[in-house]
Amino acid sequence: MTDDAIRAVIPFKKENAKSRLSEVLSETQRQKLALCMLFDVISALEKSGKVDEIDILNSSFSSIMNTEFPLNINVLLNEKSLNDALNEYLQKSAKHWDGTVFIIMADMPLVTEKQIIELTNMTADIVIAPGSGGGTNALLIRNPEKFHVDYYGTSFLDHLRIAKEAGLTVDVYDSFLVSTDMDEPDDLVELLIHGQGRSADNLRSAGISLDTKTGKLELDKNR
Amino acid sequence: MTDDAIRAVIPFKKENAKSRLSEVLSETQRQKLALCMLFDVISALEKSGKVDEIDILNSSFSSIMNTEFPLNINVLLNEKSLNDALNEYLQKSAKHWDGTVFIIMADMPLVTEKQIIELTNMTADIVIAPGSGGGTNALLIRNPEKFHVDYYGTSFLDHLRIAKEAGLTVDVYDSFLVSTDMDEPDDLVELLIHGQGRSADNLRSAGISLDTKTGKLELDKNR
Repeated sequence: MTDDAIRAVIPFKKENAKSRLSEVLSETQRQKLALCMLFDVISALEKSGKVDEIDILNSSFSSIMNTEFPLNINVLLNEKSLNDALNEYLQKSAKHWDGTVFIIMADMPLVTEKQIIELTNMTADIVIAPGSGGGTNALLIRNPEKFHVDYYGTSFLDHLRIAKEAGLTVDVYDSFLVSTDMDEPDDLVELLIHGQGRSADNLRSAGISLDTKTGKLELDKNR
Repeated sequence: MTDDAIRAVIPFKKENAKSRLSEVLSETQRQKLALCMLFDVISALEKSGKVDEIDILNSSFSSIMNTEFPLNINVLLNEKSLNDALNEYLQKSAKHWDGTVFIIMADMPLVTEKQIIELTNMTADIVIAPGSGGGTNALLIRNPEKFHVDYYGTSFLDHLRIAKEAGLTVDVYDSFLVSTDMDEPDDLVELLIHGQGRSADNLRSAGISLDTKTGKLELDKNR
């Protein structure tokens, strides 16, 4: 086990977030859910006791303008694309932060402190937690100067390749709760079944529940 | 850690298996894939060294007739519904088997011995590994006389409730690899990305590959 300091960074976008959920949630509801999910992720990071700093990397000024973030969180703005913003972040961290960078997505509200502890306890240079569909939902980078990210497409395979090319060792962290991100209405089923945090509560208060016979979403007609 | 003997049972159906995959695989190809997945699950069980007996519980005589199962596997036939067949199996096990029953689905080809070892090392009376969409992909039952299964719908929640009503303790085993079953074409993407066994090879030899830019399936035009 390593005992290096860990800096977590959560890319975040409030506006036009999660457009594939528009079948069941309005723009305002999606923004609220996006914020709840972010807070669930922050809560897991904080409860884990494994993370020394938490940065939220916002992709638009309006995300920052209208949002109340917790006071102990650093709020950064970078309007570049996700990859460019994160790679810039990694380069800066390599210069100014003598430790590990932990990139974690904002839309995985099932994560708890248990997964954060287990993942950060893995000892390889790079620890990757896959998301569904070939994604990368969490990425621990112990050598930010030697690594760069490549999200979109099958980023899981890209990150394995980038680590290999850089001569870095890799552990894969296998977790259903971490792999489950909220892109499609079907993903909300997982949130209602397995969610313990405020995102699940938020969804229920938006009038969305689960038909346990069919396993499908049920939309409250009066919502 | 308990050191009780474990009897694994894998419900299996070859004919008309995985009808939702018919968009990309013919009936013959789906039958072949179903068998490969079964063998991947058996391989994980055997390599784990944790399982004393393996039973395949077939739901139709034709599944048995035309299939070559490994010699060390017990082949059972029960044409009742999945729930009835498994509950009968649990009752018989309670009478004739002084140990634990481990129900594991045949369509989760990403499982390896690592997950089997971790799951069976958990110490609660009941260990549940969720499948996507509220399913139950693996279920370790240390007291078969006190438990019954209820698959279909959100069986994960049903099994939690049944355990609670019976006064049994529950551990949830959190694994992306175990949660990923092969129901829809999108699931085959996971198999091509994360699969190490013969199911992934089978899919590739059926002319199905992965477009790593889009993360979508690519069908070989000459297949």
